Amino acid sequence: MSDGVPSPSDFRFSRTLEVRFRDLDGMDHVNNAVFLTYFEQGRVGYFRTLGLEPEPGTAATRRFPFILAEVRCRFLSPLRFGETPVVHLRTTRIGSKSFSFQYLITVEETGRAVATGDSTQVYYDYATERSAPVPQPLRYAIEAFEA
Amino acid sequence: MSDGVPSPSDFRFSRTLEVRFRDLDGMDHVNNAVFLTYFEQGRVGYFRTLGLEPEPGTAATRRFPFILAEVRCRFLSPLRFGETPVVHLRTTRIGSKSFSFQYLITVEETGRAVATGDSTQVYYDYATERSAPVPQPLRYAIEAFEA
Amino acid sequence: MSDGVPSPSDFRFSRTLEVRFRDLDGMDHVNNAVFLTYFEQGRVGYFRTLGLEPEPGTAATRRFPFILAEVRCRFLSPLRFGETPVVHLRTTRIGSKSFSFQYLITVEETGRAVATGDSTQVYYDYATERSAPVPQPLRYAIEAFEA
Amino acid sequence: MSDGVPSPSDFRFSRTLEVRFRDLDGMDHVNNAVFLTYFEQGRVGYFRTLGLEPEPGTAATRRFPFILAEVRCRFLSPLRFGETPVVHLRTTRIGSKSFSFQYLITVEETGRAVATGDSTQVYYDYATERSAPVPQPLRYAIEAFEA
Repeated sequence: MSDGVPSPSDFRFSRTLEVRFRDLDGMDHVNNAVFLTYFEQGRVGYFRTLGLEPEPGTAATRRFPFILAEVRCRFLSPLRFGETPVVHLRTTRIGSKSFSFQYLITVEETGRAVATGDSTQVYYDYATERSAPVPQPLRYAIEAFEA
Repeated sequence: MSDGVPSPSDFRFSRTLEVRFRDLDGMDHVNNAVFLTYFEQGRVGYFRTLGLEPEPGTAATRRFPFILAEVRCRFLSPLRFGETPVVHLRTTRIGSKSFSFQYLITVEETGRAVATGDSTQVYYDYATERSAPVPQPLRYAIEAFEA
Repeated sequence: MSDGVPSPSDFRFSRTLEVRFRDLDGMDHVNNAVFLTYFEQGRVGYFRTLGLEPEPGTAATRRFPFILAEVRCRFLSPLRFGETPVVHLRTTRIGSKSFSFQYLITVEETGRAVATGDSTQVYYDYATERSAPVPQPLRYAIEAFEA
Repeated sequence: MSDGVPSPSDFRFSRTLEVRFRDLDGMDHVNNAVFLTYFEQGRVGYFRTLGLEPEPGTAATRRFPFILAEVRCRFLSPLRFGETPVVHLRTTRIGSKSFSFQYLITVEETGRAVATGDSTQVYYDYATERSAPVPQPLRYAIEAFEA
């Protein structure tokens, strides 16, 4: 990812989130750590859109059998209570055992960009405690969606 | 409030919430403290419905000029990821300086009740640091809505 | 529990906590939901003091095999960043399948009481998904500690 | 920062943290977003060590008059309940209006590295809503400490 801020038109997936009062900190804007939760909500929505949502009741370690290896977030503008954040997400890379996402968070009311970032996830077999190949259904679903 | 669990039909206000993955704890269900955040989201939505939503950009202490004095929550059933909680809220009492809410949280997909509770709020003037009378517009708005 | 606020001298167990910057909300004081987390940290410390701490690596559902059935919190004074909270906890009742705790949170620097509350826990067998008798070792440990 | 993981001996500042039960997620290990809170606790402790701790009661926007511009975290190993994290922090750069920190989180009991990362902060005047020069006292305090 370059240092430029991506545009919403770069993304095929987006979903609306909600700022909870609890997401604010003493500065009266959304706390930095909460943006990683917004990214996480983006990932959950992206998998749902891809038709890869786990069955309700599936154990957490089988539900999302990958590990977040790295995440980066750039804070562009304070996000305030009463604003509606929209998280945009796209796959930028699929390797043999890992894949990378890029994120953009904008404000629905004004279009203002408030944060951008990226993350890398590694497939993981919680039973053997080892990294694992990216499953073909995930690979195909991402390639079809992003094409 | 009696020890009985209220019914959704007892409430005129309700709104749908979202379980974030971050709301879970090591038990893989929604952590107890998060239910107080769901109650808080109920209060925000209730004030919005009453037309008493603050202007965007209003300082937090002017936005919601009351203090939570007491809250109680009964946990009826574990709430899981993938379920959609609905918070129901009603005013059960308006006094001279305080007012009380009752809450019920159900699961949209099944109607199952997962938590109920109540809270008391005291009006507060953050400038003088003293309790203050419940404003007439709030009293009228609540009475009109709940009638 | 009566409506009176207990005194630190009523409790044999207490432990010091830390206010994280993330615990604040837009009011610049500790958010109401976080007090339930402070109570939870009190429970963890109490079990540790009783010598009932689970082995590291024990699954969460075996680690604390009870369910929080009800919790109540009264907010007495705002808790601010830079203050050191102390949670005091005692057992007020042990029944056949449940037991109750009372809590008090004070500020170490000034002795000011900021919150008090109580909770009821029900023993639970996660394998059969049914309530279960309070184990004798827990009963004996509590009785010996509180005597 | 290179892609190598730093060593505790690279850091002059460290402090012990506590894993709260609430820090876990459905995977039964500490959620990714919480590591940004641990970094934040590191920053608070670092400023305290530098003798730059704000007076109690100072408004949040005057207390820490800088903005987090970017943060990156690499997750090296799951952090579990019952383990004691230690956050190590050092200044890697002081510019005219911004400064950068590097972080390492290890487990006290085993020395295992669980996360590393870095962040950039920009000085900010909340009154004029513009970036501002890094104050000389902060620059001197950091240079004296890290020398």
